Parts: sequence; C-alpha cells; structure tokens
Amino acid sequence: MLLKYSYKFKNKKGSLTLNLEELAERIKNFEGVTRKKQIEDIVSVFKAVRPEYQNAIVDFGDDAAVIDIGGDDVILFAADGIWGKLLDASPWWAGYGAVVVNVNDIAAMGGKPLAMVDIASSNSETACKELMEGLAEGVRKFGVPVVGGHVHPDTDYNSISVAIIGIVKKDCVIRSDTARPGDLVIAAYDMDGKIGPNSPYSWDTTSFKDPAVLRKSYLVTQEIAKRKLVTAGKDISNPGLIGTLGMLCETSRVGAAVDLEKVPRPENVDFEQWLKVHPGTGYVFTADLEKAEECRKVFEEAGLTAAIIGKIEEGSKLDMYNKTDRVTVFDFSRESITGICSE
Amino acid sequence: MLLKYSYKFKNKKGSLTLNLEELAERIKNFEGVTRKKQIEDIVSVFKAVRPEYQNAIVDFGDDAAVIDIGGDDVILFAADGIWGKLLDASPWWAGYGAVVVNVNDIAAMGGKPLAMVDIASSNSETACKELMEGLAEGVRKFGVPVVGGHVHPDTDYNSISVAIIGIVKKDCVIRSDTARPGDLVIAAYDMDGKIGPNSPYSWDTTSFKDPAVLRKSYLVTQEIAKRKLVTAGKDISNPGLIGTLGMLCETSRVGAAVDLEKVPRPENVDFEQWLKVHPGTGYVFTADLEKAEECRKVFEEAGLTAAIIGKIEEGSKLDMYNKTDRVTVFDFSRESITGICSE
Repeated sequence: MLLKYSYKFKNKKGSLTLNLEELAERIKNFEGVTRKKQIEDIVSVFKAVRPEYQNAIVDFGDDAAVIDIGGDDVILFAADGIWGKLLDASPWWAGYGAVVVNVNDIAAMGGKPLAMVDIASSNSETACKELMEGLAEGVRKFGVPVVGGHVHPDTDYNSISVAIIGIVKKDCVIRSDTARPGDLVIAAYDMDGKIGPNSPYSWDTTSFKDPAVLRKSYLVTQEIAKRKLVTAGKDISNPGLIGTLGMLCETSRVGAAVDLEKVPRPENVDFEQWLKVHPGTGYVFTADLEKAEECRKVFEEAGLTAAIIGKIEEGSKLDMYNKTDRVTVFDFSRESITGICSE
Repeated sequence: MLLKYSYKFKNKKGSLTLNLEELAERIKNFEGVTRKKQIEDIVSVFKAVRPEYQNAIVDFGDDAAVIDIGGDDVILFAADGIWGKLLDASPWWAGYGAVVVNVNDIAAMGGKPLAMVDIASSNSETACKELMEGLAEGVRKFGVPVVGGHVHPDTDYNSISVAIIGIVKKDCVIRSDTARPGDLVIAAYDMDGKIGPNSPYSWDTTSFKDPAVLRKSYLVTQEIAKRKLVTAGKDISNPGLIGTLGMLCETSRVGAAVDLEKVPRPENVDFEQWLKVHPGTGYVFTADLEKAEECRKVFEEAGLTAAIIGKIEEGSKLDMYNKTDRVTVFDFSRESITGICSE
C-alpha cells in the first residue's frame, strides 16, 4: 500500500530523477486534491442565501471563517470531519485526528484555539468508546476543551464531526486569499514524525509527544501572526503540499513556482508520497521578500523545519521545477481545485 | 401514530380528567427524555481531560457553552444534529430543522446568533440536494449564515451536524443552572404552528412564516436577557415542556411544581402529546416574583403565548398538579435526566 502510488524512478536524496510531467498528473488526480471540488457546490448553495447583514469577514475558502464581533478581536470558526474510511479503520485515530485537523485550522489563521464541540455517531459500544477516547486524548494533548456536543451511540454507521472556535486580533489574521506576486513561499514541517498508521498519506507528528512540548510548538503561528511576518498561509492538509499551495493560489488569484529540491523532506519517505502527505503539523505560508527569512527562522526556533521553496507569480499557473525541468501542475484559468476565488 | 401515546381519558379544554400518575410515567419514559441520559457519558469523558486553564465559563449541561473572550461579551457555542430517523424521513426537514435547533440554542441563552458551520453526509444526490436546500432555507429564514463546513456526498448514510456561535453580554447570559427556589416558572410558545410533518412531537412554527416576521419575534430572548428579567431558562426541545424543565431543575439543583391547567396549549392537540412536543419556538424560563409578569408580557408582545405555570421549590422533586391531584415526575435525589448538576 505504501508504495502503490510512488513514482517509478526511486529518487535518492540530492538527485531527483523525477518525471515531472507524470508527477504533476498524479498530484492533480490525487484523491486528497480531487475531493476538494465538493466545496464548490456547498459554497454556491450558501452564497445564494447569504444574509445582507452578517458578521463574517471571511467564510468558505479559508481554513476557518472570520467573524467580526465589533472589537479588535475576531472569532475564527471552522468544522472538520474525518473521512469515513479512516474512521472505520480506527475510531480512536478518527477522534484524535478530528482534534488535530480542527486545531490546525485555527493555527493556520494565526489564532488561539478556544473550544470545540463534537457530534459523534457510532454503531457499537467499542467504536463509541474508542472514538471518545481519541477525542479526549486530543483534548489532553492540545489543551483545547470540548465544551458541548452530542453522541448518537446507536446508529448504523460511525461518524465524527468537530467544530472549533479560536480568537485572533483582526489585523493579524493569516488568510489564504491574500498572497501577492513577488511573495516568497515558505514550507514548514515538523520532521519528527512517522507515516501512518491508517493511511500512507498521514504524517503523525503529535500522538507520541508530550503535551507541554506540543502546545509550545503550536504557539508559532500565533507569533508569526502577531509579528505580521506573512502575507497568506494555510496548514498543509489532505491535498498535500502542492495541492494546498494550489488552493492558496486559486483563492488568491495568483500563480506560483516551487523548487522541488528546496522542499524539506524526511530521509526515509518516498518523495512523491511526501508531497501528498497530510502532516500533523505543517504549513505553507507566503511572505514579503524582506520578511520571509525572519518567518523561516521563527518556524525553526519553534522546532519545525522550514525552507523558502518558491515564489508567488502573476498569472494562474502553479508550476514546480527541478534543475532540469519545469511543469505546470494546475492552471487556474482552465481548471480548479475548490472553485473558490477571492471576490 | 398521532394518538398512539395519548392518554386514555381524552380531556376537554377546561376539564382535565387525567390520570396524573400514568402521565408522569409516560413523560419520564418518553424517548425525548430518556435519550438525554447519553449526555452524562460524554460529559464524564471530557471533564476528565478538561484543561486547567480554559475560557469556558459554562460547558456541558446548557443549551450552549459560554466562552470568555476577555471583554464584556462572551461567545456562545453549541452543536446539534438531527435524529437519524427524522433525517431519513426527510432530508430537507433535517437540514432545515438543524438550523432551527441551533438558532434556538443561542436564543435560549439570550444571545444573538452570528454564524453556523455544517458537516453533512449523504448517500444519494437527491438526499444531498434536499439536505442542502433545507439548510439554505433555514439560513434564509433566520438570517444566520453558514460560513464553512463539509459535505461528504458519497457515504452509506445520511447525517447532518451543525454548530453555531452567538454573542451576548457576559452579565446577561441566560443559563439553565441558576434557577432559585421561589422563582416563578414561565412557559412561552408560538401558538401559530402545526404538528409534524415527520413526527407527532414536532410543532412547526417557522417554515411557513415570513423571514422578517420570524427574525423580529426571535429578538424576544435578547430583549429579556438585556433587561435581566429572568433567573434561568431553556428552549423547550426533544424532552418537551416537563422534560426540559426537569433538565433545568436537575442542573440548578432545585425542584419545581407545575400547574398543568396553566400550561398554554393549542385547542386541537391532545394534551399529553402537547407536553411532549418539541416546538419550533418555545421556552421555559424562571424569574423572580416581581419580574415574572414583566417577562410574560415581553413574550406576549413578541407574539408568543406565555403563562406563569408554576414555581421553583427547594428540594429535588419536579411535581405537576391539577385541581385534584399532584404527582412527582422526577425526583433528582433518586434519578437523573442528564446527570449534570451545577458544581
């Protein structure tokens, strides 16, 4: 399973012998990317009935919605579920993972997570218990309480939905639709992780770490937000690094070029697999020329491995290149990942 | 179906020939009440890992959690799903109903609803479309936007989870664990409604009304909160009037006595059924002697039918009575609805 989708020419560190055309095709058609198309349909439904007066500054298309509450602070509000197939593989990991992805939604926006609510359904006492224990372990790790919700312990299926709120200063929000041509692209990962256990595209960086260490390292995006070091950003999620940057480019209406040889990577993971990985802790941010290096350093000081991997460009193409080749992965003038663009 | 659970001696307006003992048993064993027991298990899981420092002033046991954000305002945060059997009966009503119950969670606390997120799963294109249209109609009616979420359009089941945030002044929050012996109990219903369509215990008061009228009437609890007219309150939900008041008594550690002949009721609905109804718009509030009548009037001015139906008492018993009999429905020294008490 682990190598099923890896590319034919196994690369060694420092010598990337990739067929970039084929790699681009496989990234574009990766389920983590293609599943994002569903967002477009929801958005069109709710945009049609969007109230004339409302408090949302940002809604769909970002990691969290931004809700104006009249003061200097704004409330961040997000919801995430866990793919059914991951849930059936392990209810514990689904519960735990639901916390991780929600905390990451708030972290990506530069916010402090405040509280979560959950709605869980399970088809057996064992599944229900495991799901709850996974959620509880997530709470213990990240220190973000679950303050309400429901359990349906008697359904025919297992499912878990979690919503989260966070808080951040209004002028510090890290959005994903605000990248500008000329910005540098920074990728930051916690490299102290491992693949799995339930997907070859998961990179667990949290479950085995001490809560105190973890919570400290999670303050990094709040620091970056406060110091206004970046122009835009997202947490790297199911679409992987290139797919996530693609979403950022699409909603910012810009292109980008990524130097694959600059991408931070662990030694023992196949590179294509790595590009598709959903890391426990990973971000793709954009910053002004003069602030990018400072941002990179702040990530490094927090224990992440960060590198300037490319540049935001005018136009609609997300390209990736190495020493010998350059290919376009997405051209947003002809195609879309989410279909959501800034207005 | 409609009459399956109605009591044997059909009552006429003004002459309640009820067997109160039997009625009390049936209310206590009503599924809308017994399902609330599941809350206790979740709460114990999350209380065990509750972080030492957190922003939640109120969490489980109320209609919404109350999150301190440092200023005069607090954020209300709640999540609600829709019972699977209601969902399969009509995805549209499940989507619409999910909005109604979430808006009611915020209204019950005296708050202004700000935004919702949803996670929907569906097993067919038709179900998905209906579910989304129901949600969208809820947004249109109540003017509360959906600002994020997910749809899983390819699951084996249908489910809908919605979370909501609202805002209210910290010193105006209407909690449910703050009722005091001596307070009067006020029940308020929108009487302009109809039973169904998917449950004999639904009382739809919203789907057929003009959004402008509805939104105006929904300001009533914000007004009551602002004027500090009540000591505690809840929206009447699945457990019906007596069950909901029971939850309020349990968490407030008080008893109560309800005069059944004072309960506002429509002419054409069986009284036992009415006591179990989950109304689209209905509240049970408690107030000081000197403010109860003013609170009742504010409800009436907003178009609801409100009455002082009883009194909060010392002790642990929720009794109901009529001219001839008095019975205990719940005795919280021996039993529980949710198992959650104020600390």
